[in-house]
Amino acid sequence: MTILVVNGPNLNLLGQREPAIYGSATLSDIERAVRERAVELGASVDFFQSNSEGGLIDYLQANAASASGVILNGGGFTHTSVALRDCIAGISLPVVEVHLSNIHAREEFRRTSLTAPVARGIISGLGPRGYILALEYLVAEENAA
Amino acid sequence: MTILVVNGPNLNLLGQREPAIYGSATLSDIERAVRERAVELGASVDFFQSNSEGGLIDYLQANAASASGVILNGGGFTHTSVALRDCIAGISLPVVEVHLSNIHAREEFRRTSLTAPVARGIISGLGPRGYILALEYLVAEENAA
Amino acid sequence: MTILVVNGPNLNLLGQREPAIYGSATLSDIERAVRERAVELGASVDFFQSNSEGGLIDYLQANAASASGVILNGGGFTHTSVALRDCIAGISLPVVEVHLSNIHAREEFRRTSLTAPVARGIISGLGPRGYILALEYLVAEENAA
Amino acid sequence: MTILVVNGPNLNLLGQREPAIYGSATLSDIERAVRERAVELGASVDFFQSNSEGGLIDYLQANAASASGVILNGGGFTHTSVALRDCIAGISLPVVEVHLSNIHAREEFRRTSLTAPVARGIISGLGPRGYILALEYLVAEENAA
Amino acid sequence: MTILVVNGPNLNLLGQREPAIYGSATLSDIERAVRERAVELGASVDFFQSNSEGGLIDYLQANAASASGVILNGGGFTHTSVALRDCIAGISLPVVEVHLSNIHAREEFRRTSLTAPVARGIISGLGPRGYILALEYLVAEENAA
Amino acid sequence: MTILVVNGPNLNLLGQREPAIYGSATLSDIERAVRERAVELGASVDFFQSNSEGGLIDYLQANAASASGVILNGGGFTHTSVALRDCIAGISLPVVEVHLSNIHAREEFRRTSLTAPVARGIISGLGPRGYILALEYLVAEENAA
Amino acid sequence: MTILVVNGPNLNLLGQREPAIYGSATLSDIERAVRERAVELGASVDFFQSNSEGGLIDYLQANAASASGVILNGGGFTHTSVALRDCIAGISLPVVEVHLSNIHAREEFRRTSLTAPVARGIISGLGPRGYILALEYLVAEENAA
Amino acid sequence: MTILVVNGPNLNLLGQREPAIYGSATLSDIERAVRERAVELGASVDFFQSNSEGGLIDYLQANAASASGVILNGGGFTHTSVALRDCIAGISLPVVEVHLSNIHAREEFRRTSLTAPVARGIISGLGPRGYILALEYLVAEENAA
Amino acid sequence: MTILVVNGPNLNLLGQREPAIYGSATLSDIERAVRERAVELGASVDFFQSNSEGGLIDYLQANAASASGVILNGGGFTHTSVALRDCIAGISLPVVEVHLSNIHAREEFRRTSLTAPVARGIISGLGPRGYILALEYLVAEENAA
Amino acid sequence: MTILVVNGPNLNLLGQREPAIYGSATLSDIERAVRERAVELGASVDFFQSNSEGGLIDYLQANAASASGVILNGGGFTHTSVALRDCIAGISLPVVEVHLSNIHAREEFRRTSLTAPVARGIISGLGPRGYILALEYLVAEENAA
Amino acid sequence: MTILVVNGPNLNLLGQREPAIYGSATLSDIERAVRERAVELGASVDFFQSNSEGGLIDYLQANAASASGVILNGGGFTHTSVALRDCIAGISLPVVEVHLSNIHAREEFRRTSLTAPVARGIISGLGPRGYILALEYLVAEENAA
Amino acid sequence: MTILVVNGPNLNLLGQREPAIYGSATLSDIERAVRERAVELGASVDFFQSNSEGGLIDYLQANAASASGVILNGGGFTHTSVALRDCIAGISLPVVEVHLSNIHAREEFRRTSLTAPVARGIISGLGPRGYILALEYLVAEENAA
Repeated sequence: MTILVVNGPNLNLLGQREPAIYGSATLSDIERAVRERAVELGASVDFFQSNSEGGLIDYLQANAASASGVILNGGGFTHTSVALRDCIAGISLPVVEVHLSNIHAREEFRRTSLTAPVARGIISGLGPRGYILALEYLVAEENAA
Repeated sequence: MTILVVNGPNLNLLGQREPAIYGSATLSDIERAVRERAVELGASVDFFQSNSEGGLIDYLQANAASASGVILNGGGFTHTSVALRDCIAGISLPVVEVHLSNIHAREEFRRTSLTAPVARGIISGLGPRGYILALEYLVAEENAA
Repeated sequence: MTILVVNGPNLNLLGQREPAIYGSATLSDIERAVRERAVELGASVDFFQSNSEGGLIDYLQANAASASGVILNGGGFTHTSVALRDCIAGISLPVVEVHLSNIHAREEFRRTSLTAPVARGIISGLGPRGYILALEYLVAEENAA
Repeated sequence: MTILVVNGPNLNLLGQREPAIYGSATLSDIERAVRERAVELGASVDFFQSNSEGGLIDYLQANAASASGVILNGGGFTHTSVALRDCIAGISLPVVEVHLSNIHAREEFRRTSLTAPVARGIISGLGPRGYILALEYLVAEENAA
Repeated sequence: MTILVVNGPNLNLLGQREPAIYGSATLSDIERAVRERAVELGASVDFFQSNSEGGLIDYLQANAASASGVILNGGGFTHTSVALRDCIAGISLPVVEVHLSNIHAREEFRRTSLTAPVARGIISGLGPRGYILALEYLVAEENAA
Repeated sequence: MTILVVNGPNLNLLGQREPAIYGSATLSDIERAVRERAVELGASVDFFQSNSEGGLIDYLQANAASASGVILNGGGFTHTSVALRDCIAGISLPVVEVHLSNIHAREEFRRTSLTAPVARGIISGLGPRGYILALEYLVAEENAA
Repeated sequence: MTILVVNGPNLNLLGQREPAIYGSATLSDIERAVRERAVELGASVDFFQSNSEGGLIDYLQANAASASGVILNGGGFTHTSVALRDCIAGISLPVVEVHLSNIHAREEFRRTSLTAPVARGIISGLGPRGYILALEYLVAEENAA
Repeated sequence: MTILVVNGPNLNLLGQREPAIYGSATLSDIERAVRERAVELGASVDFFQSNSEGGLIDYLQANAASASGVILNGGGFTHTSVALRDCIAGISLPVVEVHLSNIHAREEFRRTSLTAPVARGIISGLGPRGYILALEYLVAEENAA
Repeated sequence: MTILVVNGPNLNLLGQREPAIYGSATLSDIERAVRERAVELGASVDFFQSNSEGGLIDYLQANAASASGVILNGGGFTHTSVALRDCIAGISLPVVEVHLSNIHAREEFRRTSLTAPVARGIISGLGPRGYILALEYLVAEENAA
Repeated sequence: MTILVVNGPNLNLLGQREPAIYGSATLSDIERAVRERAVELGASVDFFQSNSEGGLIDYLQANAASASGVILNGGGFTHTSVALRDCIAGISLPVVEVHLSNIHAREEFRRTSLTAPVARGIISGLGPRGYILALEYLVAEENAA
Repeated sequence: MTILVVNGPNLNLLGQREPAIYGSATLSDIERAVRERAVELGASVDFFQSNSEGGLIDYLQANAASASGVILNGGGFTHTSVALRDCIAGISLPVVEVHLSNIHAREEFRRTSLTAPVARGIISGLGPRGYILALEYLVAEENAA
Repeated sequence: MTILVVNGPNLNLLGQREPAIYGSATLSDIERAVRERAVELGASVDFFQSNSEGGLIDYLQANAASASGVILNGGGFTHTSVALRDCIAGISLPVVEVHLSNIHAREEFRRTSLTAPVARGIISGLGPRGYILALEYLVAEENAA
């Protein structure tokens, strides 16, 4: 069972970028924690980051067939990308949208997610642990299927 | 360590009410699963449900001092209650807002949460498992503190 | 056959409260007229009034199983209560929403009804007679079923 | 005592047109039922249908003087016609606006009625019976006057 | 020199209809006053009223070629008719839009005029005298041309 | 196979009316071109124009049963007529909405089409050729059925 | 009988300022024409221009008692000044609001007039002649009183 | 002369709850200060607090008849409760709405008060002293009556 | 201790201007009452009125240094003046905004105050007594400092 | 004569992706049909697809000089890309925007096209045939030029 | 060559007023720096500040004829003054709008500039240096003309 | 000291693309002028252009560490890219946003800049000289630090 963990623009800067909002953990720290938990759960994860909308879509299209679920932190594209939304709607995988910060407590434009309506669910504001929780959900759902 | 699990209006009807949206699990089923997981995590939970906005606020005010965190499914009050929001902002506990269904994929008025901006985070659309995930988060945060 | 007649906040003040808008009939006058018509139609009615949103929901949940339909004048909750809406959607009864005054001819915020979309229909502006008409509808529908 | 029963555009297609929304009764079926009930109530009705906004206004202007009330199903003009609204405001008759379907449960643009604020009241969502209830209201009001 | 004086829906009811708003003068009174003033100015007028949007457009299309200007009181169509607007834009005559009442001092929806942007100008709120002033303007402009 | 070609208000003025926007072809020119192409495709067309909303609805109701599709240029009614929309939804024919000019490049109010959501599709901005293309589509679809 | 003719900001630049919109007549030209017409009508006019909101209000307060009516071209203050509106509402004179250009055919923000709802009426788009027509109206009304 | 002092949800937490916004005075402190001032003014006050919308309405309905005025701090219900608004409109007492903080300087949703339009007036942002000023006003008005 | 009492446009007309809304007291009456109360409180007041936005700003800039607080009734500028708002934010005095009428119960555009968010607080709807209450507040605050 | 046929994000998934909306034809099927029709018309086509906004712009910039027209299905970028709009406006080719589904009958955000206002025209809802019709239009226009 | 440097309300308080936003430089400091740079560039500047909208317009009208350009910091009038906008549009000089702070990073109402659309350009957020840059631009443009 | 000069989509077409709006200078012309001025100021510049959102973000992330400031003309991404905004907020450099044309004088959607709130300042409408002015600002600031 493989879970895709897909990170959008600027998430490669985690740890340096606005740490008051996003915390001090780097994307590598998160990747390590997710991989450790995946091992415990008997799952494998494929980690991907891109600053390019097209790059994220290409990746999702190419890897959807061999995966059981997606953890998606679309970064800024969350709020602007109909193309990413269409991509999620077009692949037949459960997607859990994850945000490190609480998007309801920030600027107005971050409260609208174009991708959320076609995702299975959203975890927002729970920091890096949000990735772990999303992983647990997807593995449990897959096992229950 | 005690976690309050607070459920708003109509959640006592779970299992009977619109199962296509909310699933077949009853609130008792959810309570049982949450309690079991709490035992594993060495935590205790206090379960509460009320159809009354004032009842929920009274409960939260009365029990906040002895608790470490709140799992809140405010039901319909999520979208309309400034009073519940003020209550959450007024007690000094981390609150995870949980919704069984994906509120971004339903009617327009369900996409706005008045309580979310003062919560720590939100888990939406992951069904009863959302409660378990919220519990894990709160216990882990408390343990890390 | 029992029809629930449910009245929301401030309707207990009918007759005294803003008679230019709501008329001089009291809620007891309306209750008497509805009961008389129910006798003629071979139905019984259960009359209930509460100023509390939770009280209305509790009542509807507790009495839905033994009733054939609901006449609901939600008063001010009509325009603000997602919880009442969810309650109506969750019980499996035909609901006729009744308003004494013409809500389309008053303040802007009274033109939106949160409960109407999940009701069977609405009667607005026809005064106390609106209750009688709603009763006739519900009895006729039940008889036709 | 004569009641005008005025039907707007496309209501002549009732029974064929989108029966899932509007039911299988034809406009003739409704006319027959209304006439029967009128006989019982000692009233007469004048039935009219037109697809033309101007035709409806011409009719209302020409017949208002000899009538005691109007049952108006303005169809699509309900949501767009200031002219029809002005006509209703200009004649001095009580008007009950009737809609077969629940206009609050359909597309957003159907929730606004331009004519409702100048009508006496509205009956929506109660199917063909809505016409009968409107008739009973108007006759009772006239008798009470 | 011929000026078309075109009146939309319900203006045939002037004098009877809501006299508190529209005054006690009938459309015939206005027609007489306009004709008298036209004689003084050496112009002729063609008076027309219809409750039908199509009827007004048909009339304007048929008579534009032989006229020097239009006085248009579109009544309720002022606020809703793109078709009437397109008609005005399509004929090559100066049009003065006239309203008996001050449309800026009434309901919100009367403050928007779809036809005004393609008219030469607007006279609103000056009662029947508005027609006379519009006539004087059009004749003076024609004489100055 | 008969295709109805229905033209709304002011389209009878084509060629004279605002040629910078609508071009110099007259409605007769378009009719001739459509008829010629229909002959080539083995189809017949029925051409109709009216400035009246009710007239268009009457025509569509009367001729729908014997036709295979509709080419509709609703003119100004496109943006304002719920009645025309209901008519299209009520007849069971594929409708292609055609606009000579690009309605997205003009005034804001022309960007909303009330009829488009119930049409099969829209061709906008391609001038008189839009009618030919719509014809080709409808004939091909009918042949493929 | 004295009529105040009050001109707001930038109207002193008439003739030089954006002549494509405002024409080539200067404010002196308009003043001369208005004075000539006033003589014919047996009235006197008091002409005033200021670029200052407070200056206009001071003038209106100081001169209202001795005047029979006001012709007001508020210029840019038309769309922004609640203070000018309150001033008009506070003096007990009929006010005709005049605009040289058709404010409905210009930028969106010019379509809202804060002063119009408390004026007697509006004349817009008829150029300098608008002042003459307003004068005729006010004199006729005064004579008719 | 009795003045009702009615406090809505979460005001029982004053002093503990977000002291940066609401200050360090408790509701008891405010009650004591108001009672002292009432004694000086020869009035008596009846203090009430509830977290329940229905509880506030019940209290106001029950005590209105024996009171001369109301000081109302509706807390979060200020911005959401049509029912409370209707209650205020329905009792015939002067109501002064009081807010400890300046509601115009906080979140957007706090700038709208549903109850203010039916209150006599509002005092906002003046801290606990706002209650004293409201009391002085109501007593003075009563004495002047 | 000096308190500035600053009154905006049209307040010099108090007593004459729309007495149904603003009452019969003149600005001199209010000044006298405020001065009397100031004497009792051991404070002095400086009274100022201007119809000019710039005049009010000039006054506030010139007198802020020698004052302890400001009572500001900005009149119509309340709703439109960013410049006045910036002035209040720029001087370092507590400002109490006072309105004679209840601005929440009037036209929509009066419900937004640009100056309120930078004021200490607001008293609205309590008539001339609002000035006295504001004075008491400012003196008490100054004494408590 | 070369026509560019440019397809945006996710169109490479056609046939697999949400076939209920987009049909079962693949992009290759469409390409084949377009090429066949192009041969008949004596034109050549250049087919391109990319999931990247920048990729589409690069392609259009690079190939515009050698082409006579563009058929553009911008996919999700249609609704969000000012950059693509600027690109279309910047190259001097006629562009026909094509959508397989009827964008007016889907989610609200799909009804706004940022690119349509700078395109020559739009064909929407006519399935794969929309590409053929666009091709016919562009070839005919080019031949007529 | 003379450049007018025009400063609106409250800018005379620079250095004292909200230094966290506007910095510690006074308007005299800025004037000195601008004059020095003007000497280097062979230009002269005319410095003006007023808290009065009318005062600014009077100044611009009086001095436009002898100047080559305008540097305008309209302060709070930037967001509210149609009159100032009309003045800028009416004089035929290039105007560079300057703001010390970044108006896009502050309150919502500061993001709209009524004057910007009729200015040549805007420099915002670059502090006092913004005046220097505007001067350099205007001198260079004049020299290039 | 190195300044990054970053240009977004379609700016490589400068000179050819809509010259009425963007002028005849090419991006190479601008680059040459900026480099010349940089030499005079003792700074170096790194010029970059991309049509890809991800490409711009990759470039900024890669080069921020070695630079002192950024001149950013984000082209169409200015109005739509949250990702670019997050990137600017995430690097710790002063950014001056430059637009060749006056974005306040064009289409409505160009008046909103998502990137401006996190930039230091904006220069808009001053043509290629805007780049020079931005360079001068950044160099002067760096030298002053």
